[in-house]
This record gives sequence, C-alpha cells and structure tokens, in this order.
Amino acid sequence: MSGVKQRLADMGVVLPPCPVPLGAYLPVLVADGLLFTSGMLPLVDGQLACTGRVGQERTIEEGAEAARLCALNAVAALAAHLGGVAELDRVARIVQVQGHILSAPGFEDQPQVLNGASEWLAAVFGETGRHTRLALGAFALPKNATVELALIARVYPG
Amino acid sequence: MSGVKQRLADMGVVLPPCPVPLGAYLPVLVADGLLFTSGMLPLVDGQLACTGRVGQERTIEEGAEAARLCALNAVAALAAHLGGVAELDRVARIVQVQGHILSAPGFEDQPQVLNGASEWLAAVFGETGRHTRLALGAFALPKNATVELALIARVYPG
Amino acid sequence: MSGVKQRLADMGVVLPPCPVPLGAYLPVLVADGLLFTSGMLPLVDGQLACTGRVGQERTIEEGAEAARLCALNAVAALAAHLGGVAELDRVARIVQVQGHILSAPGFEDQPQVLNGASEWLAAVFGETGRHTRLALGAFALPKNATVELALIARVYPG
Repeated sequence: MSGVKQRLADMGVVLPPCPVPLGAYLPVLVADGLLFTSGMLPLVDGQLACTGRVGQERTIEEGAEAARLCALNAVAALAAHLGGVAELDRVARIVQVQGHILSAPGFEDQPQVLNGASEWLAAVFGETGRHTRLALGAFALPKNATVELALIARVYPG
Repeated sequence: MSGVKQRLADMGVVLPPCPVPLGAYLPVLVADGLLFTSGMLPLVDGQLACTGRVGQERTIEEGAEAARLCALNAVAALAAHLGGVAELDRVARIVQVQGHILSAPGFEDQPQVLNGASEWLAAVFGETGRHTRLALGAFALPKNATVELALIARVYPG
Repeated sequence: MSGVKQRLADMGVVLPPCPVPLGAYLPVLVADGLLFTSGMLPLVDGQLACTGRVGQERTIEEGAEAARLCALNAVAALAAHLGGVAELDRVARIVQVQGHILSAPGFEDQPQVLNGASEWLAAVFGETGRHTRLALGAFALPKNATVELALIARVYPG
C-alpha cells in the first residue's frame, strides 16, 4: 500500500466520493504541476454536516470538525482527480489552505478552527502535508456552511 | 479570426478597455506561465454598474449579471495584457475564479450568483474556460460593489 | 550590499524576526519557483499593533499603517525563508497580494487601506514589487486584527 493510503487506513478514514459542484465549475484542476481545488464544504454523504456561525450557533470544536470535513472532501476530490487513493503519493506538497470560517460578530479564533483541517492534513500527508494558510472570518457562505476551504497542492506527474 | 475572438463576436461581446487600478497595483501579471488578475469590479464604461448586497438591495439575477461583468473586465484586462483580443487563444486554461459576493446577512446562494461568471467564461473559452472556484459571501467590498472577482489562468508563451 | 537590503537600510527598515504561526502551519513555502506566505497580521515585536474595524475603531490611515505592517511581516518571513535579508534579491516578482481589511458595515475604501502595503512593497522592491491584488472587506479576522495579508511571489533558485 502507498504511504498516504496506508495512513488513511490506519486512521480509519474512508474517502467519500468527489463532491458534486454546486455550479458551472470543476472540483479540481492541475495547471503545470500545481493542483487547485474549488471551495469545499463540510459534506458527509453529500449532505452539509455543519451550518451556522462559530461563536454563535457552533463551538470552536464543532467548527474544527467542520474544517476537517472540508479537508477530507478536498482530499477526496484530489484522489478522484489523480485516479484513486493510491495516487495520493503523487502529492509533493500541500502548498496552501484558504479557510473561510463563518463567524459570529467579534469571533476571533479562526486559527483554532482551521487547525482542525491543518492538523488532519499533517496527519495524513506527514511533512508533505504542512502548508501555508489563510484563516479568515466569513460573513456569509454557500448554504450557510460553517466552513469553506480550498487548497493548492504541488503534484508529481502521473 | 481566432477561436475566442470569433466566439466573442458571435456573442456580440465588445471587450471594454482594461480597467484602471484603484491603487498602487497592476491589473494583470504573468509569472512563469500563470496569469493572475487583480480583483475586478462590475464596471461598465469605467463606472460601477452594480452596488449593494445580494439578498437585500440586489436580486440573485442582478448579482449574476454583476459577476458576469466582473469576468468581462477580467478578460478585457487579460486581452490588454496579452496584446489584444486575438491573443486570447493563448489562454490554455482558466484555472481558478475567486468570487466575493456582497451578501445580506444569511444570504447563502453565492454559487448561483457566481454562475453568472462561470457560465459566461465557459461560453467564451469553451472547455478551456472550465475552472475551479471559490464562491464566498463578502461583508464589505470596494465602492460597495456587489461582486469582486479575480482569476488565475494558464497561458501559452507569446 | 544587495539592492533590496540597501533600500531597506535607506528607508530605515529593520526586518522583525519571522512571525510565529498561530497554528499547525508554515509561514512561507516555495513550490516550483512560486513562494506563498500564510496570512500575516500587523505585528510589532510579536504583538498585534492594530485591532478593530476601519471606518469604526480605526481610520483609513491607521488601517494603511496596519497593512504596511502586515507586508513588513510578510517580507520578514520571506527573508527568513530565503536565508536572510541579502537573499531578498532572489525575489523576481511580487505576484499577488491578498488583503483582507476588517471593515465597518458599509466601509468601502479598502483599496486606500491596502495601498499602505502596495506602496511600501513598491518602495522596497522597485518594479519587482508591483503586483496584482485583491482588496476585500472582512467581517472577522484572527485576534480582531485590522488587516490580514498574504502574498505570492516568484523567486529565483538559490
């Protein structure tokens, strides 16, 4: 088994299918070795698993789990694009995570929320999973999702 | 006529001049084959054509038209940078669209609004125009514009 | 002395140490010649120097100074990553600045605020410092910072 595939199995993670876009766009695309995902939502079985503002309807812990679910969907989209979970070893680096956290007025702990995604990516990809990131507080997000997250990765040719 | 130029003509689209920056920055820049635009606003003849929040002062349809106008200005900036509308065939791929939609509290249909840009880009560029994207709800935008949109494209050398 | 190092000295700028991440991520990373920074805050001596919304608790001038401080921290992170201030001449281009300005409801002069960063980058790097950018109004930011700013740069190999 590949390194990442094995690690996912050890963690008991089963990747969901690639999320279906909500509009006229693609979930993932590779341009000259850089892979871009679209904004991912915290979906479970294709349904939104977490809505509402952190610091109001949602706790930091719930937000962090939502961020992790976004990252899970991003990795699922990535695996689908590359041709399967075994191909995830072609990820040379998670380059950047952009995390938009639906926030109550004055909520200022977006970094703790986004750690839910960042720590999970480091657990799955190891050193390769360590990335730069933007943690931002959102006013409104599609379907009132608690988190929207996109990532950029460098990938080796297939 | 070039493919994209012909398609624009068939659609009756006349590209506006490249938008004038609102500050100390450039509208477009190419780095190693990746082209980045600055955030574009829904300008018509250099004037903002749509202000106010979707879900409040603006309908989804008006927002979608504003998103299309942002994309039109982005493509105009791109054409100006590449050396004219005939050079738009050097676009190898629209890689990513980042769309910030000025939103009423609780508005959650940003994807429908951004489809105004995404569908127009697919119409203009065909398969090359299909992209990844982030649809985000903004709290405040320059000049109270309804949409701000930036894009990343891969371009062939001239 | 190198060009950028000399210019910083002429401007009386002393780069701070690389900012310490607020979570499980890296301040800077280079992927195939493109350098990405994480979101930077307006830190002075490791402390947040400016909090609160522009148009409410903060003036445009204070916001612009906060944006400049974010850019200063980004350049400090960049220098630390490249191996010192003399290595800043390896920056081939500041490609994009993404500036999120904590905004009062209805505040619409984000471009003026972000000019604090853009003009400083142009002063430090010259033509190389001229970039594309997104100026966005934020609803909430980590630690209630007035500005969060990330940049992408193209760098020559070391």
